[in-house]
Amino acid sequence: MRIICEKSDLLKSINIAIRAVPVRTTMPILECILIEARGNEIRLTANDMDLGIETKVSGLIEETGTLAVEAKMLSEIVRKLPDSAVTIASDKNYTVTITCEKAKFVISGKSDDDFSYLPAVEREDSVEISQFTLKNLINQTIFSIAANENNKMMSGELFEIRSGYLRVVSLDGHRISIRRVELRESCPDRKVIVPGKTLQEISKILSGEMDDMIRLSFARNHLVFEMEGTTVVSRLIEGEYFSIDQMISTDYETKLVVNKREFLSCIDRATLFVREGDKKPIILDIRDDELTLSIDSPLGSMNEELAIMKEGKDLMIGFNPRFLIDALRVIDEEEVTLYMVNPKAPCFIRDEDETYTYLILPVNFTR
Amino acid sequence: MRIICEKSDLLKSINIAIRAVPVRTTMPILECILIEARGNEIRLTANDMDLGIETKVSGLIEETGTLAVEAKMLSEIVRKLPDSAVTIASDKNYTVTITCEKAKFVISGKSDDDFSYLPAVEREDSVEISQFTLKNLINQTIFSIAANENNKMMSGELFEIRSGYLRVVSLDGHRISIRRVELRESCPDRKVIVPGKTLQEISKILSGEMDDMIRLSFARNHLVFEMEGTTVVSRLIEGEYFSIDQMISTDYETKLVVNKREFLSCIDRATLFVREGDKKPIILDIRDDELTLSIDSPLGSMNEELAIMKEGKDLMIGFNPRFLIDALRVIDEEEVTLYMVNPKAPCFIRDEDETYTYLILPVNFTR
Repeated sequence: MRIICEKSDLLKSINIAIRAVPVRTTMPILECILIEARGNEIRLTANDMDLGIETKVSGLIEETGTLAVEAKMLSEIVRKLPDSAVTIASDKNYTVTITCEKAKFVISGKSDDDFSYLPAVEREDSVEISQFTLKNLINQTIFSIAANENNKMMSGELFEIRSGYLRVVSLDGHRISIRRVELRESCPDRKVIVPGKTLQEISKILSGEMDDMIRLSFARNHLVFEMEGTTVVSRLIEGEYFSIDQMISTDYETKLVVNKREFLSCIDRATLFVREGDKKPIILDIRDDELTLSIDSPLGSMNEELAIMKEGKDLMIGFNPRFLIDALRVIDEEEVTLYMVNPKAPCFIRDEDETYTYLILPVNFTR
Repeated sequence: MRIICEKSDLLKSINIAIRAVPVRTTMPILECILIEARGNEIRLTANDMDLGIETKVSGLIEETGTLAVEAKMLSEIVRKLPDSAVTIASDKNYTVTITCEKAKFVISGKSDDDFSYLPAVEREDSVEISQFTLKNLINQTIFSIAANENNKMMSGELFEIRSGYLRVVSLDGHRISIRRVELRESCPDRKVIVPGKTLQEISKILSGEMDDMIRLSFARNHLVFEMEGTTVVSRLIEGEYFSIDQMISTDYETKLVVNKREFLSCIDRATLFVREGDKKPIILDIRDDELTLSIDSPLGSMNEELAIMKEGKDLMIGFNPRFLIDALRVIDEEEVTLYMVNPKAPCFIRDEDETYTYLILPVNFTR
């Protein structure tokens, strides 16, 4: 194999494919990116068996062939090259020579014998959305998947298509994050659970531009993401997701509207007294048109008052400050509305159109 | 005690004083910043016994007094406050109340009983230089102090005043870094060894502006740095520094001039094949008007040619690439000149005026 690519193009494609290379693995072939030069197309592929990414790179093929190269080494070499044309060549022993201007690197490659190509999946339904939207949907929900994999279902996110809307849901037993967008094209109703890992990697590849589109195709055990030059195939988590709709209620006894930025800064200040692993709640004392936020810990205490608009009863309720911060951080509005019933029942932060719903369970506190 | 300061002023002063707070210590009082409100001056002091920093902060004193507060907590609280006036008050039990707008923090403070104030030292001679110059002198030499303290002398830098010049020297047994600047005012000859730790912390406080000055005063066992509102007192390392001048030679058999940026990028690429703790040298093959740089490791090999101007003999010589990178990184010139004798003798990188001299010992290599 012998190909010539511009450094910037090559680096961009390596940075996409490398997202499917696992950080730790006992199978050396999984640490590789496969370079295929066939016909007039150069493709880079990486596949950790749960997540596979294939991306094209423009360049010149002087000799067709395939070659697996350790991804991290390839990426480091290319990153440090001058901004110029890069030649990658391999011989029959898979010795790889990378040259650029007067620099010449020689490393060992591998054949594609043990490499797992992307699975051939049969696409059933599909729907197109903007990369900007998908990137947001992921970033605005991914923080509330469960950190460990004890409950496989909680380590993924529900992608649900229903009546022309795409709803993305994550939950970890203490909170639920829901985002919903209207689709521009029609698609039959579908429900799949996508691994959180896949979504984290995908969100780093997405351009974040409103005009760049991505197509989601549903297959039996896979979800396929297709965008300009790149295909991502993710295995799905099998099983039936939690019955979210039963957990959501619109009843409330106390409703309050607060300036988001002020509320967030105030909680952020309170977290100074929360140490890692420590379950110290912050207490919201909602009375008339004032919210007093306070925290009391062995390290010290803090309290602060915030002006609010309130409907309904006065209430005193405790929360894990981290959960409030995570939700508020991804709500892009000047004011947020909180709906609460009592100190034991979940609090909802949501807008009127239900483009977002964040449910947070309160925690017990003693005064 | 009760004082009122603007958040930005207070934070700036805390960030200066905190540089003398040790990261790890078994003496809780060393983790504190002392706030003194006396007469019409508010001062913050921290002192880890080797390095002491005292800095003024402008503000209003409503009640005089002194108070020691855990530095990290104070810094975190103030950093998270709104940009507004901050009140710090303490009662007779040293309970500290920090208020800013509607936020109120309560933490525990300490009396100044156990606190070590800055030592009163008798300044002998002194000299003034710009903060920009001192910051540069430090950054351009500090990397070659010894990382461990097995040899106390090598963990510091020589500050030597001789015939109207300040010379700063560091060495670690494999290399020597020397920077020299002409002084604008006269000062008797002096030689002191300043702990590297002091210099690292000082360089973070220095403004880096040519017009901001700093005065260095020599005392028996201390060096005192005075700048606008801030005094830093550092203990000196006792003993006689190495005889540098005997190690420096101007003889050479091979002299080469190379583009610094190209040379540095080229070595940087070669380090891809150097793993932590691994002593793989890069080999410079100097022949006619070409320098071939190469490295050979179990991970792969690399070589690259660079155009040079050469005087004298051809030479093949090996170096630890890290040492070359460290020196080249802080030389701010388009071209650098290397002077060498043979593969066993030190290489010198220096300019004609001797504003900088970097000596690097070569390493053995096998071909």
